[in-house]
Amino acid sequence: MRPKIYLFGDSITEESFGDGGWGASLAHHFSRTVDVVLRGYSGYNTRWALKVLDRVFPPEKEAASCGGGAPLAVTVFFGANDACLPDRCAAFQHVPVDEYKRNLLSILSFFKKRWPTTHILLITPPPIDEAARLLQKVCVQYIKVSNFLCLNKCRYPFAENTLGLPERTNDAAGAYAKACVDVAGECGTPVVGLWARMQQFPDWQKAYLRDGLHLTRGGNMIVFEEVVKQLRGSGLSLETLLVDLPLITAIDPNDPLKSFKE
Amino acid sequence: MRPKIYLFGDSITEESFGDGGWGASLAHHFSRTVDVVLRGYSGYNTRWALKVLDRVFPPEKEAASCGGGAPLAVTVFFGANDACLPDRCAAFQHVPVDEYKRNLLSILSFFKKRWPTTHILLITPPPIDEAARLLQKVCVQYIKVSNFLCLNKCRYPFAENTLGLPERTNDAAGAYAKACVDVAGECGTPVVGLWARMQQFPDWQKAYLRDGLHLTRGGNMIVFEEVVKQLRGSGLSLETLLVDLPLITAIDPNDPLKSFKE
Repeated sequence: MRPKIYLFGDSITEESFGDGGWGASLAHHFSRTVDVVLRGYSGYNTRWALKVLDRVFPPEKEAASCGGGAPLAVTVFFGANDACLPDRCAAFQHVPVDEYKRNLLSILSFFKKRWPTTHILLITPPPIDEAARLLQKVCVQYIKVSNFLCLNKCRYPFAENTLGLPERTNDAAGAYAKACVDVAGECGTPVVGLWARMQQFPDWQKAYLRDGLHLTRGGNMIVFEEVVKQLRGSGLSLETLLVDLPLITAIDPNDPLKSFKE
Repeated sequence: MRPKIYLFGDSITEESFGDGGWGASLAHHFSRTVDVVLRGYSGYNTRWALKVLDRVFPPEKEAASCGGGAPLAVTVFFGANDACLPDRCAAFQHVPVDEYKRNLLSILSFFKKRWPTTHILLITPPPIDEAARLLQKVCVQYIKVSNFLCLNKCRYPFAENTLGLPERTNDAAGAYAKACVDVAGECGTPVVGLWARMQQFPDWQKAYLRDGLHLTRGGNMIVFEEVVKQLRGSGLSLETLLVDLPLITAIDPNDPLKSFKE
């Protein structure tokens, strides 16, 4: 059984297998070594994530019977929705920053208890381009599949932005990013400081963000590269992972079947 | 546990999570409903596939303990390497067309025995642009990850094309595509007739093939669309599959936690 890496997060994770997405790039990078498993839930914050942890990640007994159970790694990428402002149109997604920090700690505890050897990688929310957020007609972003399903299964209308103020600010996102980095420091967990990392580049607003929040191809590339770098730091790389079945370059052209004797 | 769709095949499957790849597009399409699991093996033909089936797909007992075991569907996408000509530079990958047909039947039998309810979807090899193949310096195509690994783990050199003749022809690929469609007909299995489908379009050589064999973004899009269409024909679509956890559009903004009571 191939080892697994779970991607756990909000819409930036859920849409990470879209065109140029960081999740698909990871799956491609590890195409013969690891199963990259998508567990992204558009719109979710850490409060809701905590409520569903047990359902998203199978209980010990069931997991243990499936090839050992413990994944190699889990990326935990929440905060963009927690950081929605409490007095704006996406207020129902807001989680106070102190609670966000406690929730992240609880999520890490859950994983450490369930899978003591699994590498956890935190990712901070990205920066926010407030001007671009104001151009969105609705506060809550939905990816294509959700929109599609919404035709049949939508019970609640999209939250319209009637205030003329962005539902997220870059300063607020920065406070949640700092809290995430603090949690990583307290727990000795690696972290991708995406909020700060992206803002090192000029024109980060357009280069890395599609709508002031979600990622462009370039933004996805940064997440991919940073995740690969952090995984490598944890000892998980193409050089160290076992390749699933012989590579074509390891097959003797004069006696190919030799490679397939068990 | 989310249901699974396995993608089983050669390099056109292995690289399907690359940029614009059909595998990544499927994973994105089913991002809240199905785990799309990559089992692509660059350079493999059906003879080698048969030798590794038991290792690629876990035995009944182990699978049964993992949430039921049987995947929703498996795509079986071989033939491009079987169709290498026996007197050209990639001869070691060649499998005679009669054996190819028997091997496909054996692969289908394996799945029908192991997972009687799983939908199997055959995909024929794509057409070949012989002129483009001749521009390749080597006969055997390796995707990025394999090249990378090859630096450390390559035992056999890339097969150079010194004959000045393509290692694959479109006519030969067509014979294998026909055999694949015949097998599908005999077994009542759905099939994507990729070889014929692509050639319905003018400029298919450049529009759909990157190097005369592997797929461009447009070629990947065709495979994605055809696979989605066939899966829908088997009853597997976003309308029929269960969504994993409440969509954001199903969460009451006035009482979000209501959605997370078990």
